[in-house]
Amino acid sequence: MPNRSELFDRLARVMPVFDWGRRYDRAAFGSDLVAAVIVTIMLIPQSLAYALLAGLPAETGIYASIVPIVLYAIFGTSRALAVGPVAVVSLMTAAAIGNLAEPGSPELLVAAITLAFLSGLFLIVLGVLRLGFLANFLSHPVVAGFITASGILIAMSQLSHILGIRAGGATLPDLVSSLSTHLGEANPVTLAIGLGATAFLVWVRKGLMPFLLSLGMTPRLAGVLAKAGPVGAVLVTTFAAWAFDLSGRFGVKVVGEVPQGLPPLTMPSFSPKLWSALVGPAVLISVIGFVESVSVAQTLAARKRQRIAPDRELIGLGAANLGAAFTGGFPVTGGFSRSVVNFDAGAATPAAGAFTALGLLLAALTLTPLIEHLPKATLAATIVVAVLSLVDFSILKKSWTYSRADFAAVSLTILLTLGAGVEIGVTAGVVLSILIHLYKSSRPHMAVVGRMPGTEHFRNVERYSVETDPAVLTVRVDESLYFANARYLEDRLYDMVAGRPGLRHVVLMCPAVNEIDLSALESLEAINERLSALGVRFHLSEVKGPVMDRLKTSKFLSHLSGKVFLSQHQAALELAGTASFTGTPPSHPQERTAS
Amino acid sequence: MPNRSELFDRLARVMPVFDWGRRYDRAAFGSDLVAAVIVTIMLIPQSLAYALLAGLPAETGIYASIVPIVLYAIFGTSRALAVGPVAVVSLMTAAAIGNLAEPGSPELLVAAITLAFLSGLFLIVLGVLRLGFLANFLSHPVVAGFITASGILIAMSQLSHILGIRAGGATLPDLVSSLSTHLGEANPVTLAIGLGATAFLVWVRKGLMPFLLSLGMTPRLAGVLAKAGPVGAVLVTTFAAWAFDLSGRFGVKVVGEVPQGLPPLTMPSFSPKLWSALVGPAVLISVIGFVESVSVAQTLAARKRQRIAPDRELIGLGAANLGAAFTGGFPVTGGFSRSVVNFDAGAATPAAGAFTALGLLLAALTLTPLIEHLPKATLAATIVVAVLSLVDFSILKKSWTYSRADFAAVSLTILLTLGAGVEIGVTAGVVLSILIHLYKSSRPHMAVVGRMPGTEHFRNVERYSVETDPAVLTVRVDESLYFANARYLEDRLYDMVAGRPGLRHVVLMCPAVNEIDLSALESLEAINERLSALGVRFHLSEVKGPVMDRLKTSKFLSHLSGKVFLSQHQAALELAGTASFTGTPPSHPQERTAS
Repeated sequence: MPNRSELFDRLARVMPVFDWGRRYDRAAFGSDLVAAVIVTIMLIPQSLAYALLAGLPAETGIYASIVPIVLYAIFGTSRALAVGPVAVVSLMTAAAIGNLAEPGSPELLVAAITLAFLSGLFLIVLGVLRLGFLANFLSHPVVAGFITASGILIAMSQLSHILGIRAGGATLPDLVSSLSTHLGEANPVTLAIGLGATAFLVWVRKGLMPFLLSLGMTPRLAGVLAKAGPVGAVLVTTFAAWAFDLSGRFGVKVVGEVPQGLPPLTMPSFSPKLWSALVGPAVLISVIGFVESVSVAQTLAARKRQRIAPDRELIGLGAANLGAAFTGGFPVTGGFSRSVVNFDAGAATPAAGAFTALGLLLAALTLTPLIEHLPKATLAATIVVAVLSLVDFSILKKSWTYSRADFAAVSLTILLTLGAGVEIGVTAGVVLSILIHLYKSSRPHMAVVGRMPGTEHFRNVERYSVETDPAVLTVRVDESLYFANARYLEDRLYDMVAGRPGLRHVVLMCPAVNEIDLSALESLEAINERLSALGVRFHLSEVKGPVMDRLKTSKFLSHLSGKVFLSQHQAALELAGTASFTGTPPSHPQERTAS
Repeated sequence: MPNRSELFDRLARVMPVFDWGRRYDRAAFGSDLVAAVIVTIMLIPQSLAYALLAGLPAETGIYASIVPIVLYAIFGTSRALAVGPVAVVSLMTAAAIGNLAEPGSPELLVAAITLAFLSGLFLIVLGVLRLGFLANFLSHPVVAGFITASGILIAMSQLSHILGIRAGGATLPDLVSSLSTHLGEANPVTLAIGLGATAFLVWVRKGLMPFLLSLGMTPRLAGVLAKAGPVGAVLVTTFAAWAFDLSGRFGVKVVGEVPQGLPPLTMPSFSPKLWSALVGPAVLISVIGFVESVSVAQTLAARKRQRIAPDRELIGLGAANLGAAFTGGFPVTGGFSRSVVNFDAGAATPAAGAFTALGLLLAALTLTPLIEHLPKATLAATIVVAVLSLVDFSILKKSWTYSRADFAAVSLTILLTLGAGVEIGVTAGVVLSILIHLYKSSRPHMAVVGRMPGTEHFRNVERYSVETDPAVLTVRVDESLYFANARYLEDRLYDMVAGRPGLRHVVLMCPAVNEIDLSALESLEAINERLSALGVRFHLSEVKGPVMDRLKTSKFLSHLSGKVFLSQHQAALELAGTASFTGTPPSHPQERTAS
């Protein structure tokens, strides 16, 4: 029977809480508590705002921040990651459930809960199967382009709240046309609140820090106060709306009555129709959320020389989403801004997250009546100011300079996200990245090489002045050989051989061939056979160990009309002295063509 | 103004007929005519049979062989390819249109015509955009598995005609359950005809050639007679059915009245609903048809040292399918058996195809009344015997021995084609091939290397006894660096660095790195920055020319804490003598993390 320490070690592998929890002390408790207070103050308006962005009642934003944080603290591996609703995932949630039910209906809430449930399930399945590497298929430029385009969509979608009009849409053209149609219905008081709050928040972001520092405040305290800006905007506009009855007298839209109490216990729907509508969006939300979250977690871990385990992050985020699904929330992930605040405020362990959850729980129990008069325009202003920092077109310039293929992927992602919505945009970006990669590797660089005079090195005849032998053609192929380039290899080799009547030997130099799959093996067999028929021997050189091991399991080596040379130098030495090859066909040509 | 010869040269680039047509002479005409007569005799029963397989009226098979052959002769590049209905494409046609309309209804015919139209359009678009390389994403093992599974499905689907029962289905379980349900309704006379014809055709295939050769006949004549076997079976069973009124007295199903005359002019439907149902199948049919056709054309061209142009083949096949769409046919492609017969019979130019079309036109005008009494069981027997040669499970054994990844792709393709139908089967095979390739390249082989004593060569420390320096870690990465493996590279390098306290230099050796995309560049920047912070310099060695050219367009080289060495030998020489690096951070660390 394992003793207590062994048991804890085993548990820690599944639930990291058993690792850091054992060493938890008063110093860590102090740091965590301070961080939690700061993050809680920041999260209250942010959670309400992201619920608004997702098209859901304000309180769901608070609910989505309580249980998920605790579950992530138990199962996640990052010390500083703060989990909850974030901008891009909230936008994707709005896109996924927007057409499934009426705004404000209970069905919409069920759809959001089910989306979180499916997303959690998918993340846990990926984690258990250790399939976290799938997220790598999102290239950095595609993610950067997607985040930028999402930021624009989010900001545009909030303009209707700032103007006090009913407008909406999932794409930029829809948003623009809807906004311009309803522009005449703009509510001046709402607009004043919205623009005032936006201007104030921009000033808080850009001007408050220097101002507080010039007053002699420490940078850390000034930073904390600057983060509390949204709370200030919320307090002032809520008070104004209540004191002057802006809602009743001027039609300013406010959050309205919010239930007071613990997060409710909720159940996802198991309707097959709803599942089939949500499963695609859930996969996209999970993958995007995971990529964002892991990149934040890795950045923060690196600053403290810590490591995170991506496959266990999947479990942590999956558990958080299941938590959201059963307590009235919607899809969540690790947020960039809140995690940075948490980290900067000195959070030492995931317990900081648990204390934040406690703070939000207290808010849900006590503060909700105060939110009733909060103007929606204020929340929209906090979202707009927050997401504008996501918009960064520098990736376009960077990729244009470095690689047109990456540029194509990032521009398509941006255009399609803006023009056709988040789901199509990110899917197209991923598909295009993969297609471009396949296309590039399907037309590998192939160079005819010769010997650098007086050395054992062989270089491209077009780049260097090298020695070649008219009876020997040496071709270096700079790519693994697999189905996508097998036929291209055949075609190019035949083209190269065609114009050389005195040819007796072809050497394929393979220092950059990391794999030869079955399709490529069949192409090599075809090449060997066709060259034999022309009286030309086919050789390989510099084949890597693992590739050679594989070739030995096939019949190719016994059919090969030539040899496999360890180095190209050896090949050149040996072939320079050979008599011409008369073209005896190999033993079983029929057997090979039939395969 | 170009003269006549220049004009022809230009035209020949679009329509190869202007190339071979100019040199056409009496000898070529003689060869082509003989080949055409032989192919026509073979095609009449085959065309009828494949129409039956596609679920369409018998005459559509003849129509699909006339105009398409002529159009391919004008636009195609293969001298010997014979275009028309083929087994696998007919099965895919049946799967695509089977659920869209009642068997025998005019709507079904319109669906088939529209499918051919969409397929032709797609092929031409691929050809004009020079996207023929997309067909390379079908790996050889996936195609082999798909053809084998299709052969089984086709043979099973014909059993109902041989038994004289109404049964059907698109998957093996459906076919088996439908056949076993209706087995009791089998028609004994039909069964006798079906089994008799099957036995006769098997004997023709295996036993007739040796028998004729033993009579002293030339192999060529014997081969031609053996190919005429199906015509013999058709003649005998049709005569029997007519003479004994097998249809009226015993309920033997016959082809029935067939319209006599020219192929009709037909128009595809432009209904958006029909298009959306057919566009996916049309893409699959086009790609599978193209891959099959190109592989046949390349095999035959190679035998005469000719070449074909895959992108122009797309145009040729596209034109053939458009031709089928406007003359009452269904999707067509280059067939293996008929092309081989055409080639063996001595076809010299595509004109042989045009003469075959003329022969089939004569058949449509004169012979159709004779077909009325042809038992469907006879046609089913010709299909069964023809497709059994497609079934070849040796690919399973071959791939199992050589590569488990290829084995996984081929077994999934076979299982899903049999179990879920042709469309799902081939799609899953393609997707799995690509995923396996991405997965393999997402976890590249990385080896710590050291110097082979007394040489300039550097080898894996785990495979060879080599010299290493505790202050220098040299890692060779055996793969291009791109988005799918960028994060893996980071993780592995950090792991390797972690356990080496005395480390001062890390050298990434890149002889097998054929590309570094923007995602990987960002990872290299992150590695450089993190190693700098640890007091370790980061170097590259043996970077290829094109990769280095690309790196020079970025800021990476100016941020690099170490050097780029032309050869690993130089790197080892230079780093062996260096003082320890104290970890001065590079100039603009913030700028780099922000990117």
